[in-house]
Amino acid sequence: MGAIEEKFAKLATDNAPGQEVRQASGAASTGLVGDKLDGTPVDFSHGDVNAFTPTPGAREEFEAGLDEGGSQAYTEYRGKRAIRDLVAGRLAAFTGAPVSPDGVIVTPGTQGALFLAIASTVAAGDRVAIVQPDYFANRKLVQFFDGEMTPVRLDYLGASGRAGLDLDQLESAFRKGARVFVFSNPNNPTGVVYSDDEIRSIARLAEAHGVTVVADELYSRLLYTGTTYTHLRAVEIDPDRVVTIIGPSKTESLSGYRLGVAFGSPRIVERMERLQAIVSLRAAGYSQAVLRTWFAEPKGWLEERVALHQAIRDALIERLRKVAGVQVRTPEGGSYLFVRLPTLRVETQSFVRILREQASVTVTPGAEFGPHTLDCVRLNFSQDHDAAVQAIERMITMIERYRA
Amino acid sequence: MGAIEEKFAKLATDNAPGQEVRQASGAASTGLVGDKLDGTPVDFSHGDVNAFTPTPGAREEFEAGLDEGGSQAYTEYRGKRAIRDLVAGRLAAFTGAPVSPDGVIVTPGTQGALFLAIASTVAAGDRVAIVQPDYFANRKLVQFFDGEMTPVRLDYLGASGRAGLDLDQLESAFRKGARVFVFSNPNNPTGVVYSDDEIRSIARLAEAHGVTVVADELYSRLLYTGTTYTHLRAVEIDPDRVVTIIGPSKTESLSGYRLGVAFGSPRIVERMERLQAIVSLRAAGYSQAVLRTWFAEPKGWLEERVALHQAIRDALIERLRKVAGVQVRTPEGGSYLFVRLPTLRVETQSFVRILREQASVTVTPGAEFGPHTLDCVRLNFSQDHDAAVQAIERMITMIERYRA
Repeated sequence: MGAIEEKFAKLATDNAPGQEVRQASGAASTGLVGDKLDGTPVDFSHGDVNAFTPTPGAREEFEAGLDEGGSQAYTEYRGKRAIRDLVAGRLAAFTGAPVSPDGVIVTPGTQGALFLAIASTVAAGDRVAIVQPDYFANRKLVQFFDGEMTPVRLDYLGASGRAGLDLDQLESAFRKGARVFVFSNPNNPTGVVYSDDEIRSIARLAEAHGVTVVADELYSRLLYTGTTYTHLRAVEIDPDRVVTIIGPSKTESLSGYRLGVAFGSPRIVERMERLQAIVSLRAAGYSQAVLRTWFAEPKGWLEERVALHQAIRDALIERLRKVAGVQVRTPEGGSYLFVRLPTLRVETQSFVRILREQASVTVTPGAEFGPHTLDCVRLNFSQDHDAAVQAIERMITMIERYRA
Repeated sequence: MGAIEEKFAKLATDNAPGQEVRQASGAASTGLVGDKLDGTPVDFSHGDVNAFTPTPGAREEFEAGLDEGGSQAYTEYRGKRAIRDLVAGRLAAFTGAPVSPDGVIVTPGTQGALFLAIASTVAAGDRVAIVQPDYFANRKLVQFFDGEMTPVRLDYLGASGRAGLDLDQLESAFRKGARVFVFSNPNNPTGVVYSDDEIRSIARLAEAHGVTVVADELYSRLLYTGTTYTHLRAVEIDPDRVVTIIGPSKTESLSGYRLGVAFGSPRIVERMERLQAIVSLRAAGYSQAVLRTWFAEPKGWLEERVALHQAIRDALIERLRKVAGVQVRTPEGGSYLFVRLPTLRVETQSFVRILREQASVTVTPGAEFGPHTLDCVRLNFSQDHDAAVQAIERMITMIERYRA
């Protein structure tokens, strides 16, 4: 196999969220237990923007951008100056640390920001510390740029009052020469939030070992009652070694506009812009205008959205906790549940397919998030409340049917 | 300098079209000849979407996508199936060769398509044949993926009845082991269209040497009276070695939606999708809906748009031909003029800055397109007709002022 075939073989996306439509149906048709379960299909692989609709005013700002014409269609590669300045001020207020006007880039989604950040910090052969479990693209990106991944365990089920990052493993990874550390907070897929102490430890270790940190804070606006959140960029750490990523795709349901933002180190943002010039030129010009609504939603809008998600979380958790052998930690932020299944008669991958075919419930297999979570599934519970509850009940029925 | 610093140093974008706003003004304030020239500022670095507005119906299709909600926001990474199928049929009709349903991917702009196509075909150390002059990102992309560039000359000023590709150099590049050939047709920056014979020669040589070809046909709908266009994918060549790139950013003025399409080899498109999953996930979901208007514009719309561009082309060419020492070939397609300047008292790069400051005329320096066109500038003449004519007259005044 040639070098390029090998590289792309590692990028398989068949089980990635949203790609399930591509799998042949009927694949799971032999050895099925019981009949199909009726109910509204629920696709837990991503949030339902029909249940949680885009931010008020998004449509109008897009149209205002369209009416503005050329100056909104053709922005600088890093995004329109006026919009970057607006966003910089709001992100400084949100994170509690200054944002340099030169340290902001608008990207096609937070995925775009993550790609550019990794590409701009990881050269072939560089060692990169990656949390397990964490967002699956982190690993794929490091592999794509021929970096060497050093895993760091997140004992999210064993820890309490903290996310459960193994700080000894992190320090060991840095000692072994990791140049970059990438992590999501709230963690995707588990929804755990790093404690203030964990964040300060990450900062201290990064400083001590000269490590650049990419902090993916995509879900950091969706925090549940009692959660305290510390932004890495706001603690004692050289601002030039931190890039923070965030976007309005999740809490704000603006994914269809493909908008993300990376901010922090001007040195790294400058590289990211150079690369964006050959990757996609810029985030869609008219879409950029939608960022005017961001962090400026109507009073009470965010609080209500968080409360509605918390109610779904609690309803699903309550039901899952009654199932023997299921392990799940109550997420402190974000809209993911990461569910460890009891031992089943089929592999998780097969169960995921059967669940989709027999119960019209789509979930993402844990193998996407690391090698230690093969018996887990991830659910994005940003869904219609009642449909989600009924779907989790169908999933529980299916667990009982296939229990070993 | 570390490997990654070196890599990004090669990606400088300060002189790239649209980035001029970032250059300090006043930089050209010493040694100026004459006063400022009055007139409507014209930015020839890209088309003016206020002069040539987006396709009728684009706004409405976007809004219909928005109203459709989740199924339009979250598409497969390669784009929504129904839209890909629609586009596949139209592209088959347009290019005169079948398009496999598995051989289409929607990307964030044609830049996105080009990035993915190069990334999916060029491994470190691979030799890539690149036309000079040609679109500047081709070279940067090959460099970014650590490929080795082999230049092939386009003698666009010397040739007549053909684009002027040096087929001997192309064959020699292939003999020396080039694995991939990338070219734009109509050529960016010169606007020349490859003859039927040239296209068939490219196909024959690619077949003989097992070369994959990336054909950037972004401007192939904007063809002037008397031009015959041959699509590489429609001549005798293994369809699995050709990826064609096109999009509605130019002729259709839909750049602000960031839409491009790559089509052809399902093997390469499959790789491109795997990569898109970690680069940007997908082209903005709602924007994808705008592709429904593409190749389905109102009757006469395209013909009128072409005629209006042809009139601007002719008006500018007529004036430029009267200037001693200026060399320009009449473009057969697209909306670029590539103008070789007479010897000036200042470097082209300085002239470009002075032109912007003294005459409010923005052009792109020829150095962006290869090493043999340092005394050239590129103008995108998709502008308001009268403003463009007045701007070219100011440019001519400036040429005379700074003539050596």
